[in-house]
Amino acid sequence: MTKTASPALYFAGIGSRAAEWHRVFAEVAPELRLVDHLPPEPERAGMRYALAWKPKPGELQQLPNLQAIFGLGAGVDGILADPTLPAGVPLVRMVDPGLTQGMVEYCLWQVLYHHRRFWETEDAQSRRHWAEQYYPAPWDRSVGIMGLGEIGQAVAAHLTTFKFKLRGWSRSAKKVDGVDCFAGPESLPAFLSACDIVLCLLPLTTETRGLLNADFFAHLPMGAAIINAGRGAQVNEADLLAAMKSGRIGSATLDVFQTEPLPADHPFWQQERLFVTPHNASFTDAKAAATAIRQQILDHAAGKPLQHVVDRRRGY
Amino acid sequence: MTKTASPALYFAGIGSRAAEWHRVFAEVAPELRLVDHLPPEPERAGMRYALAWKPKPGELQQLPNLQAIFGLGAGVDGILADPTLPAGVPLVRMVDPGLTQGMVEYCLWQVLYHHRRFWETEDAQSRRHWAEQYYPAPWDRSVGIMGLGEIGQAVAAHLTTFKFKLRGWSRSAKKVDGVDCFAGPESLPAFLSACDIVLCLLPLTTETRGLLNADFFAHLPMGAAIINAGRGAQVNEADLLAAMKSGRIGSATLDVFQTEPLPADHPFWQQERLFVTPHNASFTDAKAAATAIRQQILDHAAGKPLQHVVDRRRGY
Repeated sequence: MTKTASPALYFAGIGSRAAEWHRVFAEVAPELRLVDHLPPEPERAGMRYALAWKPKPGELQQLPNLQAIFGLGAGVDGILADPTLPAGVPLVRMVDPGLTQGMVEYCLWQVLYHHRRFWETEDAQSRRHWAEQYYPAPWDRSVGIMGLGEIGQAVAAHLTTFKFKLRGWSRSAKKVDGVDCFAGPESLPAFLSACDIVLCLLPLTTETRGLLNADFFAHLPMGAAIINAGRGAQVNEADLLAAMKSGRIGSATLDVFQTEPLPADHPFWQQERLFVTPHNASFTDAKAAATAIRQQILDHAAGKPLQHVVDRRRGY
Repeated sequence: MTKTASPALYFAGIGSRAAEWHRVFAEVAPELRLVDHLPPEPERAGMRYALAWKPKPGELQQLPNLQAIFGLGAGVDGILADPTLPAGVPLVRMVDPGLTQGMVEYCLWQVLYHHRRFWETEDAQSRRHWAEQYYPAPWDRSVGIMGLGEIGQAVAAHLTTFKFKLRGWSRSAKKVDGVDCFAGPESLPAFLSACDIVLCLLPLTTETRGLLNADFFAHLPMGAAIINAGRGAQVNEADLLAAMKSGRIGSATLDVFQTEPLPADHPFWQQERLFVTPHNASFTDAKAAATAIRQQILDHAAGKPLQHVVDRRRGY
């Protein structure tokens, strides 16, 4: 019972929510044929579209007629990690208002957490101590946003309404309302020098791998806070621990790690003033994502261009 | 060395920030004569304006020519608590954009704290456990705001940008964009019945004293969260503890208490999933407040009407 007329969508390493993706695609895209195992060779030629989060290396190159690969997240580093990824096939990243909204929610929550120094209040409570705690006005607090794409700009827009002082850093020069913008590696020290709270939302690329290291931390004001909702491989974890021990970094929130799940013996779990979240800053809304991917497939099959295609040299 | 030509401003129970108020008024209102002790009787007739937070009962009635009392907070219950407060003297409450901004910051921080169930993540971290935690989308989470004045409406505007479902409750009927509004005691059960998170920003009045009691909690969905940034006397504290023990209230944040500072032996300190903040949700910005009060005094002395005068029957 193969519906050979309908376009096939091949599921390649779609992660822990596989059952949900199946259910939702079946619901919103009934005209697509969903394929979740590598078919026998003669059928592979019919696989024109693939859905991927962390595909098995070598898997996608076995589909000779692939026309687009749809990533399930805003970051496509899990897909680009496959060295055999077919070079000529467009890779599409997820742009989902629900995903952006969740990131905004997480970033604002965590900026406020560090701005208000939650751990001091919690510690006072544990000692049954009514401490008269003050905190700076938001206009006396600088938040630096690294990465000024869809998510970074949405976060900036919200932080503006809370009246924080904003700085932004990106690979290429950007203009964002209310944000003091810096671009490129040479401007990184100047950007960092006045950030009380740094929010990393960068994609993982050759340039950003290991970027948050001892040298980076040394440019920050003493006691700065770090929030990483980018990728774990951007942080030199030993350097971060050392910077927290020296007091250079006063507090941190990490949603992403070099190894995920974070191993039980990792020192981050018990580092004071370091808050670990299990890579759940935000989720792609399955229904919205499936609807958008279906539309892209139908449009592409009708000859229209794909949206949100990744520039593989940049990595995003 | 009395400058009898300049209007006198009498400081009556201005709280723990007295030194700051003195400094700031001296800076921004040099034409005012600041008086911080009850002067000898003949001089009392010259006291036309008073500044107050929690005046000593009976203190203000000793100034026979008082023309306005300026409160130092959005709530004036500490002033109205004086039964001898001169009846005919206008009482002015603080409307300060900085105060409102701080309340917005606190409310959003705490809504996100309960929405994301911080304590679960923190508990998983303490057990070195990478728990796959999910949370509802904001559009599946109802936040109920009690009190729809300047602060309540500002909080609603921000919560809207985060896409929460909003309900509002106030004494008299209000219309607020994006908020499902309820008014008056008879509509309280209907309002509460769908609130996942309730945010109390009410002024302390005869009607709101003890309002958050067993009956109130019983109308909420099981496991609802409470955030109280109104006044401590609005909460029946024994009822709240019982509701948390039964699970009716799943989590809470309290900034205000029946007795402040919260006594060291109070059970709230160690109640699980109850976060205590030391009445520091927001502060009046001293400079902005002093500037605004100075302007009101100069305008009033020039025959113009006072702004933000409290309706004493309502209590706000």
